[in-house]
Amino acid sequence: MLTANYLGPRQIGIRETEPRPPEPGQVQIQVAYTGICGTDLHIFHGHMDGRVSPPAIVGHEMSGVVVAFGDGVADDWQVGDHVTVMPLDWDGTCPACVAGNEHICQNLDFIGIDSPGALQRFWNVGADTLVRLPKDLRLDHAALVEPIAVAVHDVRRSELAAGDRAVVIGGGPIGVLIAAVAGHAGADVVLAEVDPQRRQAAADMGFTVLDPTATDQAEWVREWTGGAGADVVFEVSGAAAAVLAATDLVKVRGTLVVVAIHPQPRPVDLHRVFWRELRILGARVYRREDFERAVELLEQGAVPAGHLISHIEPITAVAEAFAALESGQAMKVLIDLAAEAPEEATA
Amino acid sequence: MLTANYLGPRQIGIRETEPRPPEPGQVQIQVAYTGICGTDLHIFHGHMDGRVSPPAIVGHEMSGVVVAFGDGVADDWQVGDHVTVMPLDWDGTCPACVAGNEHICQNLDFIGIDSPGALQRFWNVGADTLVRLPKDLRLDHAALVEPIAVAVHDVRRSELAAGDRAVVIGGGPIGVLIAAVAGHAGADVVLAEVDPQRRQAAADMGFTVLDPTATDQAEWVREWTGGAGADVVFEVSGAAAAVLAATDLVKVRGTLVVVAIHPQPRPVDLHRVFWRELRILGARVYRREDFERAVELLEQGAVPAGHLISHIEPITAVAEAFAALESGQAMKVLIDLAAEAPEEATA
Ligand SMILES: [Zn+2]
Ligand SMILES: [Zn+2]
Repeated sequence: MLTANYLGPRQIGIRETEPRPPEPGQVQIQVAYTGICGTDLHIFHGHMDGRVSPPAIVGHEMSGVVVAFGDGVADDWQVGDHVTVMPLDWDGTCPACVAGNEHICQNLDFIGIDSPGALQRFWNVGADTLVRLPKDLRLDHAALVEPIAVAVHDVRRSELAAGDRAVVIGGGPIGVLIAAVAGHAGADVVLAEVDPQRRQAAADMGFTVLDPTATDQAEWVREWTGGAGADVVFEVSGAAAAVLAATDLVKVRGTLVVVAIHPQPRPVDLHRVFWRELRILGARVYRREDFERAVELLEQGAVPAGHLISHIEPITAVAEAFAALESGQAMKVLIDLAAEAPEEATA
Repeated sequence: MLTANYLGPRQIGIRETEPRPPEPGQVQIQVAYTGICGTDLHIFHGHMDGRVSPPAIVGHEMSGVVVAFGDGVADDWQVGDHVTVMPLDWDGTCPACVAGNEHICQNLDFIGIDSPGALQRFWNVGADTLVRLPKDLRLDHAALVEPIAVAVHDVRRSELAAGDRAVVIGGGPIGVLIAAVAGHAGADVVLAEVDPQRRQAAADMGFTVLDPTATDQAEWVREWTGGAGADVVFEVSGAAAAVLAATDLVKVRGTLVVVAIHPQPRPVDLHRVFWRELRILGARVYRREDFERAVELLEQGAVPAGHLISHIEPITAVAEAFAALESGQAMKVLIDLAAEAPEEATA
C-alpha cells in the first residue's frame, strides 16, 4: 500500500509499505478518506520535530471501514462497520487522567503525531479509539468528524447557551465549524475574518461575517449586543492582534475561548480581564461525547461539510495537497485512499 | 472638620471643611479609621486623573459609627451602630446590572474614587452601602473589612475547595489576605514574594513563603503537588514576569485569578492555556456577601489584622502616610480620624 510520510521540514514522500496485521487489542481499518489540517501543516513545516521523527506517517482526520481484528478485541465491532477514530491515547495514571481529564493527559499520545497516522490504506489502531459511523453517512463527509468534534468541544467548554451572542475570530475550517455548531445550539453568531476569500466563503455558507480591518469590531459588537458585549468569543485565528482585540468584545463576566495555537506568548489586556471579570478558557481536542455529538450533527446536516471540502486528491498528490493548504487556497483537503489502490478497494 | 484631599499628582492637602447634613437616603458616619491602599496610591500618583478631579476627598477602607440620618432612611440603623461601607454605587440599569453583576456595573461609581471618600471625620453615604459591624470588633481592625472582602471575593471566584493547593503571587496586604482566606477555607497555600521584607513579614505571620528569584517556582510547585500543578494561582503582584510564569504553576484545568491591576497588556503563555485547558478569571471588588463574610472572618480571628496594620497616623500626617506606603516600608496604614478632632470625638 502507499503511505504518505513526513521526511523532514517541507518534505512529504510517498512510500510503498506492506500492511501489517493488527496487534492484540487493535482493529484494522481500510481508510477511505483522510483530511489534512493545520496541525499536519505545522508538522510539514518542521515545527513539531520534537514529537515527529521522520519517516512518520501523519494524518488523524479520517473515515474508513473495519476490515480485520487483532486478538482480544471485544465483540462490539464487525467487518464492514463504518468508523472514525478519536486519535487520543492516554496513560490513565497521570494527575490529569486521575482527575478525569484523560483527553488532555499529561503524557498524551496523539495518534497521527506521536504515533503513525491515517495517511495509509490499512491503519491499525486500538479498538477503544473507534467511533461508530452510520452507514448512510458519506465517508468523505465523515472525514470531518474529528474537526467537528473539536468545534463541539470548544462550544461545550464555553458553556454557550441558546440565545447567546458569539463572535468567532478566524474563518478557517475550525472557525467555520465552531460558528456552525454554536449557531445550531441557538446562538447568534458573527464570524470575523481578515482574508477576503475566506470571508466570502463563510458568507456563501450563510454566516454573518465581519472584516476586522474595515469595521470597528468592538463598536459593532457593542451595538449588536445592546451595549453589553458578546457572551462568548472564540479566538481561532492565532494572530496576536486578534488576542489583544478580543477582550474588548466580551461582556461583563463573558467568556473568551482560546482555540488557536499561539506559539509565542501574546499580549493580553489583563486590565480588561480584571475590570469586567472576564473568563478565558483554553480548549483542546475533545472527549468521546464530542465525537458522538459531531457524528449526530453531521447526520443532521448541521455543518456545511460539502462546502468545507474544497479538494479531494489521491495519495500520490499529497505534496500538492499540502501546497494547496499552505497557499490558503484550500479550506479542507481530503486524501482519497482508495483512488490509487484499486486492487484493495475491491477486497 | 479636617479632610484629606487629592490636589493633583503627588499632592495631598489637609483642608478645614464644614460637615454637611446627610441628604435624603443618606446616613452620616463619624469615621473612626480609614485605610490607605494601592488604589489611593495610584490616585496620588496622578494615574487616575480621568476619574478623580481635585480637590477630591479620597479613602474607601473605613470603620465608623452612625451619627445622623437623612430623610427616608429605613429604620434598619440606629445612632451608635458600628458600620463599614461597601463603596459601590451602581446604576441598576446597564447590561451588567440587569444580568446580576451590579458590583461591576458598566457605570459604577466607586465611592472614594468617583465620589467623595472617607478621609473626613463626618462622611455621608447612601444607607444601602452600610455593612453592620459587631460592637465588640475593634474599629481599627474593622477598617480592614474592605480589603478582606476583596480577598473573600477573589477566593470565592476561584471556586477553591478544601484540600486544594493554591499559590499566591505577591505578598502585599491583598496577597496576605488572600492567603489567609484561602488557608481558612482549607487550602494549602504558598505565598511567592520577591521583596525580602514582605516575604519575612508573611513568614512571621505563619505563611509558607517562596522567593521566586531564588527558587525554580514551577519545579517547586510540581514537586509540592505530585506532578499536577496548583489548583489555583492568584496573580496579585501586577508584575509582567509573574504573569508569564504563573501559567506554568497551574494544573490541567486549573485556575489563574487575575487580581492585580496590569496597566499594560501582558504577554501570556496562551499555548499553555490551550494545552492544559486552563481557566483565567478576572476578579474585581466584591459583593455584599463578601463583605459580610469578611466581617465574620475578622471576628473569628481568621485574618492577621494586627500584623497587617503597620502604622496608625492622625489625618494631619496623611502626606507622611502616603510616603510610607509608597516607600514599601508600610503594609497597611490607617488614618485615625478621631486623633485630631477631640471636640468631635466627644460629641
Ligand atoms: Zn494521563
Ligand atoms: Zn450597571
